[in-house]
Amino acid sequence: MEELITLDYGSGGKKTSELIENILLPQIGNDKLSELGDGAIVEGFSELVFSTDSFVVSPLFFPGGDIGKLSVCGTVNDISVCGATAKYLSLAFIIEEGLPFATLKKIVNSISNEAKKAGVIIVTGDTKVVERGKADGIFINTSGIGFLKHKGLSPKNIKPGDAVILSGTAGDHGAAVMLARGDMLKGEINSDCASLNELCSMVLDSGAGVRVLRDPTRGGVATTLNEFIENTDLGIEIFEDKIPIAPKVEAACEILGLDPLYSANEGKILAIVSADTAEKAVSAMRKTKEGKNAQIIGKVTEENPGKLILRTKYGGGRILQKLSGAQLPRIC
Amino acid sequence: MEELITLDYGSGGKKTSELIENILLPQIGNDKLSELGDGAIVEGFSELVFSTDSFVVSPLFFPGGDIGKLSVCGTVNDISVCGATAKYLSLAFIIEEGLPFATLKKIVNSISNEAKKAGVIIVTGDTKVVERGKADGIFINTSGIGFLKHKGLSPKNIKPGDAVILSGTAGDHGAAVMLARGDMLKGEINSDCASLNELCSMVLDSGAGVRVLRDPTRGGVATTLNEFIENTDLGIEIFEDKIPIAPKVEAACEILGLDPLYSANEGKILAIVSADTAEKAVSAMRKTKEGKNAQIIGKVTEENPGKLILRTKYGGGRILQKLSGAQLPRIC
Repeated sequence: MEELITLDYGSGGKKTSELIENILLPQIGNDKLSELGDGAIVEGFSELVFSTDSFVVSPLFFPGGDIGKLSVCGTVNDISVCGATAKYLSLAFIIEEGLPFATLKKIVNSISNEAKKAGVIIVTGDTKVVERGKADGIFINTSGIGFLKHKGLSPKNIKPGDAVILSGTAGDHGAAVMLARGDMLKGEINSDCASLNELCSMVLDSGAGVRVLRDPTRGGVATTLNEFIENTDLGIEIFEDKIPIAPKVEAACEILGLDPLYSANEGKILAIVSADTAEKAVSAMRKTKEGKNAQIIGKVTEENPGKLILRTKYGGGRILQKLSGAQLPRIC
Repeated sequence: MEELITLDYGSGGKKTSELIENILLPQIGNDKLSELGDGAIVEGFSELVFSTDSFVVSPLFFPGGDIGKLSVCGTVNDISVCGATAKYLSLAFIIEEGLPFATLKKIVNSISNEAKKAGVIIVTGDTKVVERGKADGIFINTSGIGFLKHKGLSPKNIKPGDAVILSGTAGDHGAAVMLARGDMLKGEINSDCASLNELCSMVLDSGAGVRVLRDPTRGGVATTLNEFIENTDLGIEIFEDKIPIAPKVEAACEILGLDPLYSANEGKILAIVSADTAEKAVSAMRKTKEGKNAQIIGKVTEENPGKLILRTKYGGGRILQKLSGAQLPRIC
């Protein structure tokens, strides 16, 4: 029987990794692709970071943001966590015939506002329109170029004893989008959708020993932490009572049957930092609006290599694997 | 009544310009956006060209190419016509649930082959999957970075008396895709889909006085020539009997009710070159496989400012405006 691609393959979790490893890398693998996660350094006379992301979020508008804002933040953040200053964006629309002009204007306005806020300029673009029923309102791709400032960030730098820092509450974006799809609790939760260039600069400039930064989007905190340690001799332990989760997000996730640790974030970073400078990193984050709830949530261990363990409030331990299906399709 | 976006707005012609001018530029305009058509120079220590394009062609496979090959050629060409050497590509997929793996593999294989041929590497990517009925098989975005080699190419350089050169036959891609949609004449025409970095280098390195290069994709030769002279004091005159058109393309266009001069090309360039060096430019083009049918097809005039005039075989003259509707939707 012919194998078909299912929604799971766009989840950002295990299935997405499989798709990349089995279908993409054998054909287009090269030593620059994905060495920094979502961004790529390209050589100029200066080193550049180059990143791309398509946005297919449904609904297009949700509390705290919309597809336009998201499409700027997403690429700015992918570049920022590589240690670069995001500077130039491209912007490509695939629009479904029948989209109201008013909707497009609102989206473009969001893009413009967020680009100004993030200090990036859109230097090239493209617009395609497809027939009704061949897209879903609008899809947006942004790609971005940034100038590398802090070199050498990589999961390879992680050492036993390092601290795991989360810059704020987990799972807000995923919960906000899911609630926006239903009628229940509508508008109760805001997406954390934000450009994190300032937050990343603050922690990188603080002098703390930052090993790696990453924005835990699709697949959430649990998936990103798994990515840091997969195929290594190291484990990560996180402590349930240290992880900031907004009470409304916790409640909504319970109702929806989601886990906030797998729910997407669009305005958070995970940082692995040398233990002795972890407090310095947290203080630096807390000086920014986006990082005011930053917390040390766990540590890197020699035990349980390759595994992420959640230590519960009651002392138990639970393995958190990478997201394996489409818990939250069309979330970004 | 609420205004709705129609297919016309994705045609690459007048309506697309309106969308860009009325909706996009007021919000995101800046002095780098679109100064070189589809590519943007960004400052590094070296000057870079940055370009983006989404591909929504239907059908996904057509004689002479497929959406994968097209997605590499399209961005390589946008960079090449800016006078830059394309080097790095990003690659982002929006896949419709239910796409056969075999189809994706075939597309990725095409991407890989064409990237090798064009000497570009794919350094970053993204994959999203949407539900059945929310996309159409697969949409691809590529963005690209190139290093600027030949500075200053611009329609602003065009002078009266300059020669208009077309690098080969007009309208092949559009005709090939249209035929691939029906049963009639299926497979009779090959798309010209090709990476034109060598062709562009040859003509730019030839020492000819090249004012501007552009690849006449959506909207075809007539639309691109209109873009060169709109809002200027110059006109362009092209001669019907000088324009290379493959007999099969001419026949197919007649049957389909299309005009080859508005039909998309994906492997051709239009060059405006100082008259005294035009033959040198044509010779340089003809040394490449893609430019072997290059021809001087017309000239820049002081008469008829802002207008493109087609001189027919019978001595008459006809104004060719920019493409105004969606003659060929989903062509790239």
